[in-house]
Amino acid sequence: MKKRIIWLTILMILIAIPALRADEGMWTFDNPPLRQWKEKYGFEPSQAWLDHIRLSTVRLSEGAGGGTGVFVSPDGLIMTNQHVGRGQVSKLSTGGRDLVHDGFYAPAREQELKCPDLEVNVLIAYRNVTDRVQAAGRKGADDKQSGAMRQAEIAAIEKEAAGPADLKAEVVTLYNGGEYWLYTFKRYTDIRLVFSPEEQIAYYGGDYDNFTYPRYCLDITFFRVYENGAPARIEHYLEWSANGASEGDLVIVPGFPGTTQRLLTVSQLKYQRDIANPLQMQVWTSRRDVLKRYAEQGAEQARQASPGRLSLENSIKRLVGQQAGLENPRIFAKKEEQEAAMLRAIAANPAWQREYGGAWRQIDDAYSQLPGRAKQIAYASLTASRLGTMASNFIRYAAQSALPNEKRYEEFRDNRMAAMKLSLLSTAPVYTAMEEAILAGWLEEAQKALGAQDPFVRAALAGSTPREAAGKAISGTKLHDPAFRKDLFERGPSAINQSRDPLLELARRVEPVIAELRQWQEEAIRNVETRANEQIARARFGVYGKNLYPDANFNLRIEYGTVSGYEEDTTLVPFRTTFYGLFDRATGFNQKPPYQLPERYRKLTAEQGQKRLDLSTPFNFVYTADTIGGNSGSPVINRNAELVGINFDSNIQKLPNRYLYIDENEGARAVGVHSAGILEALDKIYGADALIREIRRK
Amino acid sequence: MKKRIIWLTILMILIAIPALRADEGMWTFDNPPLRQWKEKYGFEPSQAWLDHIRLSTVRLSEGAGGGTGVFVSPDGLIMTNQHVGRGQVSKLSTGGRDLVHDGFYAPAREQELKCPDLEVNVLIAYRNVTDRVQAAGRKGADDKQSGAMRQAEIAAIEKEAAGPADLKAEVVTLYNGGEYWLYTFKRYTDIRLVFSPEEQIAYYGGDYDNFTYPRYCLDITFFRVYENGAPARIEHYLEWSANGASEGDLVIVPGFPGTTQRLLTVSQLKYQRDIANPLQMQVWTSRRDVLKRYAEQGAEQARQASPGRLSLENSIKRLVGQQAGLENPRIFAKKEEQEAAMLRAIAANPAWQREYGGAWRQIDDAYSQLPGRAKQIAYASLTASRLGTMASNFIRYAAQSALPNEKRYEEFRDNRMAAMKLSLLSTAPVYTAMEEAILAGWLEEAQKALGAQDPFVRAALAGSTPREAAGKAISGTKLHDPAFRKDLFERGPSAINQSRDPLLELARRVEPVIAELRQWQEEAIRNVETRANEQIARARFGVYGKNLYPDANFNLRIEYGTVSGYEEDTTLVPFRTTFYGLFDRATGFNQKPPYQLPERYRKLTAEQGQKRLDLSTPFNFVYTADTIGGNSGSPVINRNAELVGINFDSNIQKLPNRYLYIDENEGARAVGVHSAGILEALDKIYGADALIREIRRK
Repeated sequence: MKKRIIWLTILMILIAIPALRADEGMWTFDNPPLRQWKEKYGFEPSQAWLDHIRLSTVRLSEGAGGGTGVFVSPDGLIMTNQHVGRGQVSKLSTGGRDLVHDGFYAPAREQELKCPDLEVNVLIAYRNVTDRVQAAGRKGADDKQSGAMRQAEIAAIEKEAAGPADLKAEVVTLYNGGEYWLYTFKRYTDIRLVFSPEEQIAYYGGDYDNFTYPRYCLDITFFRVYENGAPARIEHYLEWSANGASEGDLVIVPGFPGTTQRLLTVSQLKYQRDIANPLQMQVWTSRRDVLKRYAEQGAEQARQASPGRLSLENSIKRLVGQQAGLENPRIFAKKEEQEAAMLRAIAANPAWQREYGGAWRQIDDAYSQLPGRAKQIAYASLTASRLGTMASNFIRYAAQSALPNEKRYEEFRDNRMAAMKLSLLSTAPVYTAMEEAILAGWLEEAQKALGAQDPFVRAALAGSTPREAAGKAISGTKLHDPAFRKDLFERGPSAINQSRDPLLELARRVEPVIAELRQWQEEAIRNVETRANEQIARARFGVYGKNLYPDANFNLRIEYGTVSGYEEDTTLVPFRTTFYGLFDRATGFNQKPPYQLPERYRKLTAEQGQKRLDLSTPFNFVYTADTIGGNSGSPVINRNAELVGINFDSNIQKLPNRYLYIDENEGARAVGVHSAGILEALDKIYGADALIREIRRK
Repeated sequence: MKKRIIWLTILMILIAIPALRADEGMWTFDNPPLRQWKEKYGFEPSQAWLDHIRLSTVRLSEGAGGGTGVFVSPDGLIMTNQHVGRGQVSKLSTGGRDLVHDGFYAPAREQELKCPDLEVNVLIAYRNVTDRVQAAGRKGADDKQSGAMRQAEIAAIEKEAAGPADLKAEVVTLYNGGEYWLYTFKRYTDIRLVFSPEEQIAYYGGDYDNFTYPRYCLDITFFRVYENGAPARIEHYLEWSANGASEGDLVIVPGFPGTTQRLLTVSQLKYQRDIANPLQMQVWTSRRDVLKRYAEQGAEQARQASPGRLSLENSIKRLVGQQAGLENPRIFAKKEEQEAAMLRAIAANPAWQREYGGAWRQIDDAYSQLPGRAKQIAYASLTASRLGTMASNFIRYAAQSALPNEKRYEEFRDNRMAAMKLSLLSTAPVYTAMEEAILAGWLEEAQKALGAQDPFVRAALAGSTPREAAGKAISGTKLHDPAFRKDLFERGPSAINQSRDPLLELARRVEPVIAELRQWQEEAIRNVETRANEQIARARFGVYGKNLYPDANFNLRIEYGTVSGYEEDTTLVPFRTTFYGLFDRATGFNQKPPYQLPERYRKLTAEQGQKRLDLSTPFNFVYTADTIGGNSGSPVINRNAELVGINFDSNIQKLPNRYLYIDENEGARAVGVHSAGILEALDKIYGADALIREIRRK
């Protein structure tokens, strides 16, 4: 009888093991998918190969945004996407000179433009600190205490690891708390703009062609990192492939993928599907609509609003794709089956059942409280407005810097203070009229969603209408002035606390409401989740071993796949596009926006003969790598560690992969700019000879 | 009280009226949509304009296939699609010379090739004979008698109208019997091939790109009609537009659309969805698979099987699209609502209810008998094989020609005898090995579907296996020899009846089974349907007036729409493509079939300079006209009656329009070759100077 149960158990576990699909996974560099590479592609890279890739790949971050980039020369030259660099290019633009629209190229070093608030990180070391963090957590008497002790331990580890200002040590949570790693980054903060094309070609087809393929985008931008006022000397950078990628080729894609939620339980997913995503959609569309109305006031307003609008349109279209996945009964059923199989495997093992069996129920209980506060969580903040974000961060800075390091919010801990300071003192231009429109629109939406009696709404408005409150705060504030902010910061917490700046006063009024919500989420949800997720992660390790990759969280990962076209709507989609197709699309639409060509390209078609663009050059291409937002700007490389392209998008079929890996057979593909197309454009369209010489080292 | 009922009735009728969508309808020339043209487009053509269009538009037919064409010169030059002319081009090809693959061009008249069995018709007169036919039908005591009397009256009308051999008078049934019209056609039977491009460019992308857009096909072929051995003098032909169509333009599309079934009742549609279409799919896929296996034997076999395979692939893909429409609950619900609204409108009028109310029930009753015989109807015939078709037609000819004209099957009546003779005596080559494979495959499938004891199967096999039966019949028959057929035909019915040709014997054995099935269908289904459909048609006229168009049935119609792109999968699709796109697709797929370019085109990309193709020339384009199969080869014309393109396909979104008009807002589009692209290709790629001079008359 016992024997039969054991057999049944084994059988059920075998059934339960999720057959990892061909090219699935966003793997950490400590656990690369060597077996899969060897089995499917006969590819066996050395440790030196892996280290070289890791040290060539960089994270770019500015404020909330960011992405990936890659070193492509020993002189600190970085290539990333135009849409990753767009924020900086926009901030470098001034009234008469719209670099986002016109593009930019510095043929000589002294013409390169210094970015106001861009940071570049390279992961130079990583160390497993799971035991220390989990042991600290187990000392807590309850979830709240455990959470606090884990946080304290993390802060202690980070503090011990702290070094010079150009290093940053962060404890990173993986597998939902199944593992903790100490990551040490090299930081660069003197970053200069070298080349950026016209946005019309970088983002050709606009929001319509976003998440679409076939595609025709030169979504590239080059920056250079400086150290001590000179170009940084870089040891690890990628060589440019002579021919680029062909159909069937293996490609490797390292990068900093943003958020996946593939380890969510079914009840967590249901909350996303039924409450969080619809609310998020409401928030983003109302913010987008505010910017749209502002942009309608004129060309300069349209230019100011453009980066924010594009970013929101992008987020909205992505959310539509993600939500489509959750609302697809077939996809959701797959998640339910996976969870049921996991629960059966646990139930069949009494020890596991005892240790892990309760985790799902605890999450269910915690999540049952969320719907009641979901709207408050969505609306109680000032982050829609850049000035509002700064104001809140000044107020928080004053309070948080009085606390011991380990009791602070994550973003105010010592190891992140430099980045916080950079964003507080950013010299990027602020458009106060736009800020006022944004803040007014936001407060109106909050009032509509939460009601006039909501504590956040009451504190923010203080008896005024949303328009009056926003008008008063923005017209009276001096936060738009970097010198004022620098002075305030230097005068320190008490100056901040005593300031009568009307926007700081507004932020001060709402902060207790925001802080209470944050604390409630921390205690009622996050601590429970953390503990339960840790149990689930251990259960997964128990059932499946470490043939798993953790959810993405803007840290370094390595992905891979095959260059290949796919079937869609009963026809075939090619593995690559060419410049022919760019001109076909522009001419097919009769140069109607968003499909018009920049002037430089139109002239090209007229000028026959000399230095003519070879239209058959590959332009964009697709591959099956399991990427997600944050992989924007990831190098796409071949077995020889040569660069064959740069990743910039996914097609719409792939978007539900935030929650679940979407099979290559369902047409899910990542989209990149082909290395040959980049060189052809730099040469024949932009005449960027110096840049090409540096890249090709010829 | 009475007043209230009247008001209610009017209200219900108003609700019931189907708001005819913008560009809906396949209108007869006696009832063109003048109001719609005027209201939406401000277009008010004269009667002379309409007559000119009608007389410029031709029907091409060969055996079961056919399509539309248009006169484009006073010397009888006709343009149609390559896929309409493909059958003739294939039949004109001999062993070493594959004109379908290589293309063909006759720069001089004497090089034009005479087609073996193509007929061209022009509708020169039409007259309403509804009263006569319906009155005859009403004299019958029951459905069977009514049907016979209607048929006799139709035969009598056609006989009275008979004229010289180059005229053909046909009574055409419209609105499911709501109207009958006598159509008189001018017939041309000496047709010669002038120009046909390589199939690889005519049908670029093959089955994958069929029913797909964006598209890149030069789907054109030119024939010339001759009379008395000389090019026919044609009064009505279309001028070539200088610029072709632009976005937003009104286009008019006359042609001979094939089959729509939009007046089917819900129960008829359910039969299609649940029984007839799945059976049809089974029949076509098994026929396709037989040809596929045959084609795998070698290049020559592949060439022989190609036209049949393409035609079947096309039918299968179309059926998939149509069935998708029927299986779409939203679309089906629309049909149910329409019918319910119609029934309410009838029920609200006691006279209508008395006269028409029973029709739906009668159809339901008749259709309840169909499922039991559906498989027999699908399989009991020899039409899959060309030789089998000929054999059956010889056997039938012998029996039918002994009957008085009005008692014969339609296709053997005097007015159609010439066409039947043409097909019986066709000199097109017959590939006996392929015929044997087809017949063997067909008999195997029939045996599998119907069982060994089915009367058709027993009669066909006569104790042999399917392979043996097919082998015996095909290897022993002389029907492949046109001279043998000519002799047999001339010796007449008794010679046919006495022939010991084994394929004729096979056809003779199965004919009683086929005849019984045909008679049963005629009596149990078609007669009931005809009477009921006539009632429904009158009810529709009563409720909606003549703001209606009849279902398509390969007779002349006029359609119209706007040149416009559309939204698909969250992006935009352009209203036209260009030659740029052709080269993009070919290069994107790295010249992999079915996306390779014909050699002539590849050379072109290498030869820089002289007479270079202007890649920005429009190639294909889309418009909202309500077309369907049979509209292949329809001229697409502008208000000035100039030719701006030639229709050759629909996108997949449009396919359910066999059963229901699919809205332009759902992305349904017809696809044409742009007039500018045709000239550019004829000039720069084919150097067809004589042809261009004739078209442009310059």
